[in-house]
Amino acid sequence: MGKARQEPWSGSAGSKDGNEPGNQEGEYAGAPNPDVLLPELDDKQLQALSVVGRDWGGAAGNPEEWRSALPVDPDLGRYPAPRAIRPTRFGRFVRLAGRNGQLPAIRTTSETEAPSSWKGRAAGTVRRILLGPPLAVTAIALERMRKLVALPVLSADAISSIAYGPQAMLAILVLAGTAGLSYTLPISAVIAFLMLAVGVSYRQTIRAYPFGGGSYLVAGDNLGRVAGLVAAAGLATDYILTVAVSVSSGVAAITSAIPSLTPDTVVIGVGVIALLLAGNLRGVRQAGTMFSLPTYAFIAAIGALVAVGAVHAAGRGWQPLPRPRLTAAEGVGVLLVLRAFASGSTAMTGIEAISNAVPAFQPVEWRNARTTLTWMISLLIALFAGTIALVMLDGVVPNQSETVLSQLAHSNFGPGLMYMFTQASTAAILLLAANTAYNDLPRLLFLMARDRQAPRLFLAIGDRLGFSNGIIALSVASAVIYVVFGGQTEALIPLFAVGVFLAFTMSQTGMVVHWWRHRNEAHWRKSMAFNATGASLSAIVFITAGITKFTAGAWAAILVIVLFILAALRIRRYYDMVDQALALHPHTTGEVPRYEPALRPGGAGRLTSPARRQNAARTNHEAEAEVEETPGEIHHLAIVPMATLDLAGLRALAYAASFQQPVLALHISPTGSEAERFRDYWRTWGNHLPLHVIVSPHRAIIAPMVHYIWSLHHQRPDLTLTVIVPEIIVRHWWHRILHNQNAPRLKRALQPLPKVVVTTVPFHLPH
Amino acid sequence: MGKARQEPWSGSAGSKDGNEPGNQEGEYAGAPNPDVLLPELDDKQLQALSVVGRDWGGAAGNPEEWRSALPVDPDLGRYPAPRAIRPTRFGRFVRLAGRNGQLPAIRTTSETEAPSSWKGRAAGTVRRILLGPPLAVTAIALERMRKLVALPVLSADAISSIAYGPQAMLAILVLAGTAGLSYTLPISAVIAFLMLAVGVSYRQTIRAYPFGGGSYLVAGDNLGRVAGLVAAAGLATDYILTVAVSVSSGVAAITSAIPSLTPDTVVIGVGVIALLLAGNLRGVRQAGTMFSLPTYAFIAAIGALVAVGAVHAAGRGWQPLPRPRLTAAEGVGVLLVLRAFASGSTAMTGIEAISNAVPAFQPVEWRNARTTLTWMISLLIALFAGTIALVMLDGVVPNQSETVLSQLAHSNFGPGLMYMFTQASTAAILLLAANTAYNDLPRLLFLMARDRQAPRLFLAIGDRLGFSNGIIALSVASAVIYVVFGGQTEALIPLFAVGVFLAFTMSQTGMVVHWWRHRNEAHWRKSMAFNATGASLSAIVFITAGITKFTAGAWAAILVIVLFILAALRIRRYYDMVDQALALHPHTTGEVPRYEPALRPGGAGRLTSPARRQNAARTNHEAEAEVEETPGEIHHLAIVPMATLDLAGLRALAYAASFQQPVLALHISPTGSEAERFRDYWRTWGNHLPLHVIVSPHRAIIAPMVHYIWSLHHQRPDLTLTVIVPEIIVRHWWHRILHNQNAPRLKRALQPLPKVVVTTVPFHLPH
Repeated sequence: MGKARQEPWSGSAGSKDGNEPGNQEGEYAGAPNPDVLLPELDDKQLQALSVVGRDWGGAAGNPEEWRSALPVDPDLGRYPAPRAIRPTRFGRFVRLAGRNGQLPAIRTTSETEAPSSWKGRAAGTVRRILLGPPLAVTAIALERMRKLVALPVLSADAISSIAYGPQAMLAILVLAGTAGLSYTLPISAVIAFLMLAVGVSYRQTIRAYPFGGGSYLVAGDNLGRVAGLVAAAGLATDYILTVAVSVSSGVAAITSAIPSLTPDTVVIGVGVIALLLAGNLRGVRQAGTMFSLPTYAFIAAIGALVAVGAVHAAGRGWQPLPRPRLTAAEGVGVLLVLRAFASGSTAMTGIEAISNAVPAFQPVEWRNARTTLTWMISLLIALFAGTIALVMLDGVVPNQSETVLSQLAHSNFGPGLMYMFTQASTAAILLLAANTAYNDLPRLLFLMARDRQAPRLFLAIGDRLGFSNGIIALSVASAVIYVVFGGQTEALIPLFAVGVFLAFTMSQTGMVVHWWRHRNEAHWRKSMAFNATGASLSAIVFITAGITKFTAGAWAAILVIVLFILAALRIRRYYDMVDQALALHPHTTGEVPRYEPALRPGGAGRLTSPARRQNAARTNHEAEAEVEETPGEIHHLAIVPMATLDLAGLRALAYAASFQQPVLALHISPTGSEAERFRDYWRTWGNHLPLHVIVSPHRAIIAPMVHYIWSLHHQRPDLTLTVIVPEIIVRHWWHRILHNQNAPRLKRALQPLPKVVVTTVPFHLPH
Repeated sequence: MGKARQEPWSGSAGSKDGNEPGNQEGEYAGAPNPDVLLPELDDKQLQALSVVGRDWGGAAGNPEEWRSALPVDPDLGRYPAPRAIRPTRFGRFVRLAGRNGQLPAIRTTSETEAPSSWKGRAAGTVRRILLGPPLAVTAIALERMRKLVALPVLSADAISSIAYGPQAMLAILVLAGTAGLSYTLPISAVIAFLMLAVGVSYRQTIRAYPFGGGSYLVAGDNLGRVAGLVAAAGLATDYILTVAVSVSSGVAAITSAIPSLTPDTVVIGVGVIALLLAGNLRGVRQAGTMFSLPTYAFIAAIGALVAVGAVHAAGRGWQPLPRPRLTAAEGVGVLLVLRAFASGSTAMTGIEAISNAVPAFQPVEWRNARTTLTWMISLLIALFAGTIALVMLDGVVPNQSETVLSQLAHSNFGPGLMYMFTQASTAAILLLAANTAYNDLPRLLFLMARDRQAPRLFLAIGDRLGFSNGIIALSVASAVIYVVFGGQTEALIPLFAVGVFLAFTMSQTGMVVHWWRHRNEAHWRKSMAFNATGASLSAIVFITAGITKFTAGAWAAILVIVLFILAALRIRRYYDMVDQALALHPHTTGEVPRYEPALRPGGAGRLTSPARRQNAARTNHEAEAEVEETPGEIHHLAIVPMATLDLAGLRALAYAASFQQPVLALHISPTGSEAERFRDYWRTWGNHLPLHVIVSPHRAIIAPMVHYIWSLHHQRPDLTLTVIVPEIIVRHWWHRILHNQNAPRLKRALQPLPKVVVTTVPFHLPH
């Protein structure tokens, strides 16, 4: 959208920018927009539409007559009707005035949206209780956040990484015992520098993409469609793992404080994900202040922890406490150090959040966003450095039953209130970090679906204006991963770094290209240098993580990323094919189609001859794509499959005959004697319509019928065959076993046939 | 059918006897008849049909014109069409000459029955390989059996009961140790007498029901519909348990000989049931000679066993061998004796088979059948008595790992060839006994379905002229029971006797009533006395088994019987309701319906006024049943839901407009701006047809549309609303996730609405 979304790869069906409703300045690139489900037509399509319309002009008769012939008032007067199922509160409907002679649009009310089946209504009631009443699209509005609100909202993900990043690094180093742990400081210094570099790099992105510059947009914008998909794939694994890792770390913070809960790790985690699912379907993302408290509480807790730890350390002359005895499982080597580095760098996941959400700031947005980013990076580095320093001073080493942060809090605060506060705020911020992914992945899928690289169902906006399908997909994926890995943070970390740094790399490489393209802008050299630094460092971390963690699980992340990209490419190809098939392409010959009056057997003078043209114009129809037809070009033959001459069958016959178009009744008989008997009945009835009987001695019903209809199509490929199927509608699904399923089976079997329209004449049983 | 099937409870739709094709003398009452799926009309319905036809006479125009207006030749010349999917061997189709000016009937060939989807074709190929080519209905013919063939075919079930009946009795008696076993002889004597009495009783049935007198028919015929259902319920549990018990006994015969197979009892049994399923779907029941061998082999084996045992016993001066030491688990009491009696009487299950199959004998059928029955009863009693005597003489007691028969064979034949022959023939005859149930239960279900007391799907005749659905139902039910009871014969026996003797009791009580009604026939007093004896004794066994085995499993059998009866009653009630709803009931007013010419907006002079009658004739329509309509009484409004103006939507519009009936396009828009945009497109297209836009701010699509259509129906209940839905047809089901499912969802939601017809205009994607 806007400047930020010029898709170089966009096909003919791409949207015309600036024309979309709701594309005001300062809106999220990924803001929900229900109109996306009904895309605009481009000029070519509009022109085709008017050409097609001209063709109709000759064929369809006077529009005014069609309008005045309507036997109903479409405006309905009152809606829902007085005798509708739930006749309550009619007063709520809103009628819009019609314009330009058009019929007025009617706004639906909650009553008119109620499903008509009891099952649907019950499901709706449950949904209302869980999610609250549906919101109108006009409720899509953005809160603008002050910097002090934006900081906790947008940095929960990044800052919460302190809870697992250092621990993941130490868990690798401790494998080499004391010698390994001596690398803690240098690796931490490199990670801190990395945070700084990536932070500065994202400051450039904020300036360049004031409408929100997620990695997918930036990479796609500057590096092309596939690069955008690579970034998206990295982000998608990132977000899914953010949920899994944050939940597992949060649960670890709880089980560290209350060890008796440890066996229930998986159950608690899945429960938390279910809560996140319900909360996000309900729409928690509006609640900015909710975010502020835990984030600031966590910052305060870690700050206090570092301060108290420093006082303690100063009290003993900055002498580190002795570590427990360690047995080295492996020697110190380059690989070990790189693995520890890759694990530790997960402490900076979530750093990109602010650059996605620039339009959510108060004006001047980009300037406020940059300031907030600077604050966040500073805080992140400070907390990270403080935690590492405290780990060194307190001689803490990771162990299975208690997190590093919990050990630090224990040793400095004792088991009292401050310890509990630290653990609770850790759990809370990790929960919020998981929630960040719930904002971001559905939005990413929305953007991908808008570019037709993800299923359209991710475009749909739920009752509460969230991207429900994306929220559900994220919950399912992260819950599966969480359960598969048994809720163990250490097992998840190797998968994590790959996706994060892949997305960072693509995004920042995209920014390098961006600045090269915008060489006229101020400071482009400096920005490009910062972004190039960030990109190079991110790439190094990505490659390091990919190689050193490959066997530990990174292979799975890489596999998922590759499959994600391939799926997106195929989806795009499929939608392109669909668009092309559905695009209007008026008759190229330019001839005005003949208009033959409809056949009326009742009016003798107007009967057409019994045309039996074997070689109609379009013989090789089924090889072709479907093409336009004007009403006058459609020549009908209705086929009514009849099993018995009962009320359902006769109603279908009457329906078929009422159009005054040719009708052929079809009966499949298992025996010659039954065929003869049916013909007798037909004569008893009066032999009003042509009947054709097929004897099927092997008792097949569907296949002979389909083959016969197929053969009729080949005899006259220009005809539109309408198969009118009487179908008994049962009240309860379990009654279906008492009826044959020939009607639905026939409908399914006829689906692939060209120019065959299937009509169901329902017959409702009284009870 | 024939005399044997005068249903006193048969409703208005009952068939006219003697008029059904294939009802020749000497045919099974349960012979497959494909015409049953398409029942005859009774006189009342025929009259209604001609009255309805007269109504049409005024409305539908000249039949000859309808016929000559047909744009195709229904005879097709060649069929399948030259361009059909698999253009092979056209020469095989048969064309029947048309009669009385009717179009000729075409016989389908195997090609025209081939499903058109590759999945369907693959399934068909698998079926051909497993089952063989389909058979034409004309292949239904009965082998007439000589007595020496009929004996093994029809008595496998009864005679094989020797393999488990005595053992089941001994297994109860041994609980009371040696004191219990001393009751073996008296109980056996009672059972032998019972066999004689029931056998004589069934001799009477054969005379009275020469067309086949199953318990269901006899009880229903003489005692009324519910009694017939009680018998049917007993038979159904009997047949299901026959399969389970025969298979478990057969597997026990195998595991007795090869003990290492014991742990695989369940797997082997399920495999045997699968084989029975496949074989019966293929149609093994024709293979009479196949049955002769194992039955005679079993008779020979047991005969030899008894003879050798007698020689051995004579050699030691008829001194019984010592029994192993027994510890009595309970004391001897009336209850124990009765339980042993009830278990032992399962030795006579299957005794009714010959009376079901009288028409399968060579003429004079009933006389040959009676003779065969006499032979069978004599054999049964002899083998039963011999086995019991041998058990007494050889001091054999039941144990877990080896069957009684196997122990007898071991001790008399040693472990050599004769032992193996005995075990193999036991296993084989039990397999055949199970197969008997495969003939009988599907035929019972067929008869019940013909009386509309079972789902119609049991009427269907499979490719190989078997009742496939009944065969499948029996396999599933018996496999489930077999697995639930772990393949243990002892656990199954308590369920068994209840159903068998309930059916015996009902059947023979029915015969008593039969003879009372036919008091003029010769020997009616003697026959009635025999049947009364059989009925009384059977009733005593039924009650004994029901009470003494109640907690051991008979409760489950009784529960199933009760549920079976209730289900059959409800099914009958349901079908009666359906029949009534589907029956023709012409307009009682007798007025000739007005015939209004179809609306043609193109021809100005013939337009009807924009009728907006709010209070149409049938306002309270949805409370009423569906009624007849002649074509002229149907007034149309087509509604075309449009999401976008693409090719699929425009084709649906053109289809709707081509009928020259009023059309209203309907668009659901999420926002006012999108609504306005859509109207612009509509104008660009030319505004040819009326458009109505509903704004659904909560983004619901289906519910507002359904409510709107519902409201239109209430505005004009006399209109037939045709909802014409464009639907994209995907090539592969997994592509469905890439499209919204609004078309199928809308179709489902519209199903319950009265006078709403749904038409699907398919749009086929090219790839």
